[in-house]
Amino acid sequence: MRLHGYWRSSAAYRVRIALNLKGLTVEHIFRHLRHGEQSAPPYLSLNPQGLVPALETDEGAVLTQSLAIVEWLDETRPLPPLLPPDPLGRARVRALALSVAADIHPLGNLRVLRDLKTRFAADQPAIDDWYRHWSRLGLDALETRLAREPDTGRFCHGDMPGLADLCLIPQLYNARRFALDLAPWPTLTRIEAVCLALPAFADALPEAQPDAE
Amino acid sequence: MRLHGYWRSSAAYRVRIALNLKGLTVEHIFRHLRHGEQSAPPYLSLNPQGLVPALETDEGAVLTQSLAIVEWLDETRPLPPLLPPDPLGRARVRALALSVAADIHPLGNLRVLRDLKTRFAADQPAIDDWYRHWSRLGLDALETRLAREPDTGRFCHGDMPGLADLCLIPQLYNARRFALDLAPWPTLTRIEAVCLALPAFADALPEAQPDAE
Repeated sequence: MRLHGYWRSSAAYRVRIALNLKGLTVEHIFRHLRHGEQSAPPYLSLNPQGLVPALETDEGAVLTQSLAIVEWLDETRPLPPLLPPDPLGRARVRALALSVAADIHPLGNLRVLRDLKTRFAADQPAIDDWYRHWSRLGLDALETRLAREPDTGRFCHGDMPGLADLCLIPQLYNARRFALDLAPWPTLTRIEAVCLALPAFADALPEAQPDAE
Repeated sequence: MRLHGYWRSSAAYRVRIALNLKGLTVEHIFRHLRHGEQSAPPYLSLNPQGLVPALETDEGAVLTQSLAIVEWLDETRPLPPLLPPDPLGRARVRALALSVAADIHPLGNLRVLRDLKTRFAADQPAIDDWYRHWSRLGLDALETRLAREPDTGRFCHGDMPGLADLCLIPQLYNARRFALDLAPWPTLTRIEAVCLALPAFADALPEAQPDAE
C-alpha cells in the first residue's frame, strides 16, 4: 500500500497512527503542501479533492478522507480494533473523532488560513487568533465530555487506543504549534501523554517523518 | 427517540433523511440556532459542543455528530442499509460523505459566517463569496468523482440511497440558498432530482419542518 501524505498534515498523521496501531508498513509518498503538490495534476488525478491523505491499495483502489481510510483499515484488518464492538460505543468514538475532524480541523487547515490572509487581508496575529478560537471551542467541549463520561478510560474510550485518540493527538500537536495554553484541558493532555508513550503514536509524529523540515 | 434539530441545519437535515429512509418516527425538539438556543444551558448540558443535531435514545443515551448518528442507525436498524456491504464500497461512500461533512459544510456553518462578520468586518457580499468559494471547490471535486467512477449509479453509490446522498442533498440545498449556479455539476443535480422524488428526502426538506419560518 502507498500512503500519500505530508509530515505536517494532521489528517495524514491520523492515518499514520492507525497504520502503526495495526502493525502495517506502507510506502510513503510525500506531497509538499506548502509547494502545492497536492493540487498539481499527477496527484489531482488520484484525488480530485487535492487533499492528503490518500491511500492506494495493492489492488489499485484509491481511498480518500482519513476517517474513511481508518474505518476501512479497521474493517479489513480487525485486530487490534480501533472502534469498540457495541453500537453505542462506536457512536461515541465516531462522535468524538468527528468533533475534531469535522468541527476543529477544517477551520484551521492550511488552505483556509491562506485564504483568510488574501481574502480579508488578515495578518498573522489575526490568523493565529482565528485558529485558537476554533481550537478552544472544540477542545473545551471535548474536555467536558471526556472528563464527565464514564466510558473515558486511559484513552478516549476505555483502555485501548482508537479512532478518537488518533484524531485528538494530531489536533493537540497543532494546538501546541499555535501556542495554545493546554492547561484548561487536563483530561486531553492526560490521554495525550498515555498515547505518546506508545511507539504507534510516537513514530507517527510529524518530526519523525522523512519529509520533516 | 428524540431528535434535537433545526429546520435549516444541514446536519440535522441529514439525520432526518436517514430516519425517514429507515421508516423511523421520532419526537422532534427544535433548537432555534439564530436565537442561540443550541448554546443555552439546557441543551448544552446534553451536548457540550452546542451544535445540532443530537439524538436521545429511548434508553437515555445522547448521540451527537450527524455521521455518527447515521452510522449508529445503520448498525442498529440494518434495513434498508445506508452503507454498501463491501469494505471498499463503504470506504467510498464514507469518503464522499466526509468530503461534504468535513470539507464543505464546516466552513459555511452559521457560527463561522457570523464570526467572519465580526472578526474581519466582512459584509454580506464578502461572506457570500467565502461561502460560494468553499462550496464550489468541494462540489467540483465531488462532481469529478461521481461523473467518472463506475460505482456511481442512480444515487451516489449504486441504485440505493445512502450516507453519501444524505450529505449531498442538504449541501445542494444550501448552495441554492447562496445562489450558486449548479450547472457545472450535472451529475450532482441528476442525483438530487432522483433523491428529491423520494418521500424520505422530500419530507426532510427544511421547508417541510414545523419550525420553518
